[in-house]
Amino acid sequence: MQETGYVVGVDIGGSNLRLALAGMDGKVLAKWAVSTEGIRDPQVVVRLIEEGVDDLLQQNHLSRSLLLAIAAGAPGVTNVDEGIVIATSYLMGWRDVPLRALLEARLGVPAAVENDVNTAAIAESRIGAGQGIRDFIFIAVGTGIGAGIVLNGRLFHGMGWSAGEIGYMLVPGTSVSPVEKGEPGALESVIGGEGIKAQWQSLWSQERTPLRRDLVATQIFDHALQGDPLAQAVLHKSAQTLAYAIYNLAVVLNCSLVVLGGSVGMHPAFCDATREILIQRDKRVQPKLVRSTLGPDAQVNGAIQLALDAAASRVLST
Amino acid sequence: MQETGYVVGVDIGGSNLRLALAGMDGKVLAKWAVSTEGIRDPQVVVRLIEEGVDDLLQQNHLSRSLLLAIAAGAPGVTNVDEGIVIATSYLMGWRDVPLRALLEARLGVPAAVENDVNTAAIAESRIGAGQGIRDFIFIAVGTGIGAGIVLNGRLFHGMGWSAGEIGYMLVPGTSVSPVEKGEPGALESVIGGEGIKAQWQSLWSQERTPLRRDLVATQIFDHALQGDPLAQAVLHKSAQTLAYAIYNLAVVLNCSLVVLGGSVGMHPAFCDATREILIQRDKRVQPKLVRSTLGPDAQVNGAIQLALDAAASRVLST
Repeated sequence: MQETGYVVGVDIGGSNLRLALAGMDGKVLAKWAVSTEGIRDPQVVVRLIEEGVDDLLQQNHLSRSLLLAIAAGAPGVTNVDEGIVIATSYLMGWRDVPLRALLEARLGVPAAVENDVNTAAIAESRIGAGQGIRDFIFIAVGTGIGAGIVLNGRLFHGMGWSAGEIGYMLVPGTSVSPVEKGEPGALESVIGGEGIKAQWQSLWSQERTPLRRDLVATQIFDHALQGDPLAQAVLHKSAQTLAYAIYNLAVVLNCSLVVLGGSVGMHPAFCDATREILIQRDKRVQPKLVRSTLGPDAQVNGAIQLALDAAASRVLST
Repeated sequence: MQETGYVVGVDIGGSNLRLALAGMDGKVLAKWAVSTEGIRDPQVVVRLIEEGVDDLLQQNHLSRSLLLAIAAGAPGVTNVDEGIVIATSYLMGWRDVPLRALLEARLGVPAAVENDVNTAAIAESRIGAGQGIRDFIFIAVGTGIGAGIVLNGRLFHGMGWSAGEIGYMLVPGTSVSPVEKGEPGALESVIGGEGIKAQWQSLWSQERTPLRRDLVATQIFDHALQGDPLAQAVLHKSAQTLAYAIYNLAVVLNCSLVVLGGSVGMHPAFCDATREILIQRDKRVQPKLVRSTLGPDAQVNGAIQLALDAAASRVLST
């Protein structure tokens, strides 16, 4: 491995594109972000990534030749071996985008791609709450909900690259209606960010709470902490539902650690209430539940880790 | 590996001890069985196993020196690395039984031990319905319910050797009461053999069906096929509940195949009804559901496979 060199980690989100430049020790030196609102064309995204890379290098007075690799987390099902983003619901629906080849062609360095929740799980595994843990599950609760499953120290991807789609899990209290294409899954409908908002709105009336009807999940949880009974009911139902899902994962995979991340999952009240319910449920099955130590930086840090791996192999795959 | 030699596979069940003698091609040459009713002492079980081994060898005019290895599936949580049966609910509750060492000491050949559902999963993977499938799940529905999870072609055991304990899974329609030690899990309470009987008994009345109140699960399913509406209601509820559990496994592990075994799971009506519900549930998530091709011989055949592995390594672990 070259002694001097740099890598870039990319988090391609539904609303933002975030980049971070790091040295070969994985430490973030600088960050860059731009909106992806209204963008669909992968070529445009790759051009924006190049802009960001150049900007990050220039800010740090580094020449392009010092960039050794890049990796990107994408918000959808991703074939890591082929470097293809198979499908996303964000970015207006990518289908079979050869993102690794596009990045390598534009930047001239080895690239890697991965699903964004998996990218976050890698970061938690290597530098976050999952360090040294052989088997653990990272759960991201944001607008949607998904899991990155680390087994025997490696990401488990499944036959069709979509292991960990726990947003579709059925637990007591979720709908059992058949799922139509493009619809959110049963679990996500209750405890994804939108699901929690919907719970609030279905319970809300002016007589029952002085709070506004248009609160988002984290605001509802804030108000639950401050004592609003209706917000507490939503928090309790959400925590109960999440606890059932985590319990199911723990009995199936017998893993001892679950790391909770994502903008909604990071809320301390959500994690604490879920943990309480898990403790009461089954003395034999007690997965440790902790919040992500990397928070919103998990994805981009995981991408940096993958870029370091790609730099170590240093072979263009195209 | 020696060219001539034999191995024995053992299935230690709650009510029967079953042995099979096989050549190095894994083909079963002879079988032997004895009741384990009322037996608790592992030393007694090991002595019975020795009796069975000697009987099988004598029947086939083989000397004891031709026995190259033995492996046993045990009905409980088993530490495969250490060769220890950590806990069983059958056999009146084994705790930390060093079964591998006991077998090796008594028989003088390399031994291996494994959980019995995992043993069946190995058999399905190597010579049954899961041949050539990288990731699949074997589900045994008998008195209880458990799963053997094969990922990347190998059994996945989990941090505490108890991955696949799906009898505890929570799905819509199962109880959410906290689980007390020794109690059956939520899913098992509904669709384990005893759970299905309990469903029948709770619905049963002389006015509603001409059938007896004390039917067992497979008899109830037989009567469902013959048109009894109450039996059909139990079959439908059981199939729906199993379908939810399989769907959850499929979204978490993204596996394409589920193999159904065990005395209740092997009933064609149960498998067919479950498959129908899965097909309707979610077009994107369609695990193939098939019945075990090995049936009640899965466990002992899996033990033979493990004994062949042990013979290949040919090192006494004690």
